Amino acid sequence: MSSERVLNVGRKSLDDYIVEVILMFQEGSERVVLKGVGPYISRAVDLYNALVSRMGDSVELVKVGIGSERIKGRMKPFIAIEIRKKY
Amino acid sequence: MSSERVLNVGRKSLDDYIVEVILMFQEGSERVVLKGVGPYISRAVDLYNALVSRMGDSVELVKVGIGSERIKGRMKPFIAIEIRKKY
Repeated sequence: MSSERVLNVGRKSLDDYIVEVILMFQEGSERVVLKGVGPYISRAVDLYNALVSRMGDSVELVKVGIGSERIKGRMKPFIAIEIRKKY
Repeated sequence: MSSERVLNVGRKSLDDYIVEVILMFQEGSERVVLKGVGPYISRAVDLYNALVSRMGDSVELVKVGIGSERIKGRMKPFIAIEIRKKY
């Protein structure tokens, strides 16, 4: 397995996203990327912190990427938080 | 030299922060950490992107850290974007 899935963080509740992440891991994803664009960058970090406080040491931070990408003709900042489930 | 300085990103304009970062490098800082807490996380990423588009290849991303810290009794998410001036 070396599958990676991307979770786009938006307006849903953090609990909804936590469930989605847990399901992605259960379905065999090795890594999950929490992606937040524009105002959802802060929320992606919130989600990461919520996952750590909920799942503890079983979640490991692999890498944090930042940058900007063109969306509908405009450059928008993004964050990509890559996490891994340890056991 | 191995000095590192922290720039706390808040409400000031991106241009103000860009000038501050340039001055920090001119004053001999080897690395600068762009720190954003809570709603200013997105803004710290904005600042990083603005620096890259302004200074080009001379700015190098060293590391991006995320987490939460206690501020006035409350846990707040933060981002710490460490950059380096290459030449």
